[in-house]
Amino acid sequence: MNIHPTAIVSTKANIADDVVIGPYSIIHDNVVLGAGTEIQSYCELGISNGMSDGEPLEIGEGSLIRSHSAFYEGSVFGDGLVTGHRVTVREKTLAGKNLQIGTLSDIQGHCEIGDYVRFHSNVHIGQKSKIGNFVWIFPYVVLTNDPHPPSETLIGATIRDFAVIATMSVVLPGAEIGQGCLIGAHSSVKGTTDPDTVYAGSPAKKICPTSRIKLTDGSGAAYPWQEHFNRGYPEEVIKKWGGEICNLGE
Amino acid sequence: MNIHPTAIVSTKANIADDVVIGPYSIIHDNVVLGAGTEIQSYCELGISNGMSDGEPLEIGEGSLIRSHSAFYEGSVFGDGLVTGHRVTVREKTLAGKNLQIGTLSDIQGHCEIGDYVRFHSNVHIGQKSKIGNFVWIFPYVVLTNDPHPPSETLIGATIRDFAVIATMSVVLPGAEIGQGCLIGAHSSVKGTTDPDTVYAGSPAKKICPTSRIKLTDGSGAAYPWQEHFNRGYPEEVIKKWGGEICNLGE
Amino acid sequence: MNIHPTAIVSTKANIADDVVIGPYSIIHDNVVLGAGTEIQSYCELGISNGMSDGEPLEIGEGSLIRSHSAFYEGSVFGDGLVTGHRVTVREKTLAGKNLQIGTLSDIQGHCEIGDYVRFHSNVHIGQKSKIGNFVWIFPYVVLTNDPHPPSETLIGATIRDFAVIATMSVVLPGAEIGQGCLIGAHSSVKGTTDPDTVYAGSPAKKICPTSRIKLTDGSGAAYPWQEHFNRGYPEEVIKKWGGEICNLGE
Repeated sequence: MNIHPTAIVSTKANIADDVVIGPYSIIHDNVVLGAGTEIQSYCELGISNGMSDGEPLEIGEGSLIRSHSAFYEGSVFGDGLVTGHRVTVREKTLAGKNLQIGTLSDIQGHCEIGDYVRFHSNVHIGQKSKIGNFVWIFPYVVLTNDPHPPSETLIGATIRDFAVIATMSVVLPGAEIGQGCLIGAHSSVKGTTDPDTVYAGSPAKKICPTSRIKLTDGSGAAYPWQEHFNRGYPEEVIKKWGGEICNLGE
Repeated sequence: MNIHPTAIVSTKANIADDVVIGPYSIIHDNVVLGAGTEIQSYCELGISNGMSDGEPLEIGEGSLIRSHSAFYEGSVFGDGLVTGHRVTVREKTLAGKNLQIGTLSDIQGHCEIGDYVRFHSNVHIGQKSKIGNFVWIFPYVVLTNDPHPPSETLIGATIRDFAVIATMSVVLPGAEIGQGCLIGAHSSVKGTTDPDTVYAGSPAKKICPTSRIKLTDGSGAAYPWQEHFNRGYPEEVIKKWGGEICNLGE
Repeated sequence: MNIHPTAIVSTKANIADDVVIGPYSIIHDNVVLGAGTEIQSYCELGISNGMSDGEPLEIGEGSLIRSHSAFYEGSVFGDGLVTGHRVTVREKTLAGKNLQIGTLSDIQGHCEIGDYVRFHSNVHIGQKSKIGNFVWIFPYVVLTNDPHPPSETLIGATIRDFAVIATMSVVLPGAEIGQGCLIGAHSSVKGTTDPDTVYAGSPAKKICPTSRIKLTDGSGAAYPWQEHFNRGYPEEVIKKWGGEICNLGE
């Protein structure tokens, strides 16, 4: 382990041999850090608020948590988690592999997140959200959950595989964003959207099939985005998309 | 006192005996912390910017300040203040008891806040705002104050008792949100709103009396919210609401 | 130098004699700090992510970086930079003098910023943005850059001199905001806007010349704002505005 002398690390934490922990970070008792993981400076991991049922915070192999981030105990992340700075993650967040969480994003816990999901900066994920695989959520998007705030009724949003939600949109309680959808910037969406369809506006309206959006360089359709964009995805994942893209186009 | 050895605490600060101060936090000279208060890690309290007229930062009894928060001197909070992480509070913020300030919220100072107010995550309260009692403000709401930015004319918003402002709404300079109002998500509001009325849209329009909004479980009206939601409020407060609710319904 | 004993400062950093560095801050190797600069607590400067081509982080004279901020190496700031708390600045940000960056703002790097620009709190500047001189950007404004997200096509926004973008507006990829424009709160703007013109709405529409907006105190036109607002600008700058204002009015 490469633990900075100013870091405060519990001897009860379960930390792989080659983990790096930066200056002034705090690792509490109930934390499991996989091999090859790096925790940068001023992070606090494994915070307890009595809502985690004693479950640990588990972070998979090869992860990177950037500075000033705070994670509660009782959440589980697959391998390859990467965060920006000042990320907050509450208890009972269950996420697959290769999740990216941008700077200032706030995951409120009690939610499910698939594989290869990417939250850009300053995204707010309300409790009870369900997010599929390969989803993209852009800055200042909020997933809400209370249909008549304040209340005890929390109905999370559902975001299906390959969907894209653009900057500063609000997903209203219980909304279901269909597979491969594009929600335009500055929209608010409720109800269930058709797959592979563009919605925009506040309230959002159906605009057109996503296949009508063209790349600005004239090289063809911009969606399904997997056909032209694969930065950061492993080769075996991109191969699988081949089949899925055909399905999407049907 | 239970002060972590890495905390930097001024001997001039006025700190009750049983206060807890977490790792790497900094408490400056001009700070008063009430009994039973806990300050978590990486917080800095009592920052001076020359605009506080030498007045102290006073935080009431039984308060909890979560990690990475920054409070300036010259503000006063009643008992039972609870914050999320990375909260910023500037000078001349005067707040009643049991205020909750969510993660990443930014109180710009020079404002008045009543009792039992709840700011969810990432709320921005501009200078000269006046907020009543039992108000709820949801994520990414901004209370603005400059009618023709940039200028020296700051006209704060007024939010009256029991009003609710939903996610990602902008309250324009000088707007007055009436008692018991509901402002829908993604709205922008100007002028004065009628009490107990729903407004939504950008610009926001009057939609209907709040009493027309029904609970999704079919159990009745969702507003006034005090009739079905009381999590976290003390028994004596809930009893008082009985009378106030009658008034609201008139 | 006045370096707090808990600060971690590389001996390779190039720091002027009278620089002040606060508690728990970290200064990496590749950092240049000009005379009279103050770095407050919990800041980390000169972070490397392999995208800075080995270029240093340079911060000009008389600057002030407030607490919990993070700057990458490979960016250059003129004299008089002032930030709020929890600011994030990535590599290849080139900024002129007297830039103000508000609390929680996030500059994504690979952008150009002129002199005397003011970002209020919680502003998000996407990569490839170009911002002129004397520009004002208010809270929760996002400058985007991807016309069909996600893609490799990044087309930044351009904001010309003296333009003002009000709270919670989205500037869409490739938009050009003309000199002296006012974008109303909660708008989304695409395309090129005429100079000295008000645009508002989502999508934003042309409203009127900015000169039609009157000061609320009845003392005349609110725009060009330079005619009545000059707080914080040096005398020699205000004098120059005389000529520029005439041009703006033509």
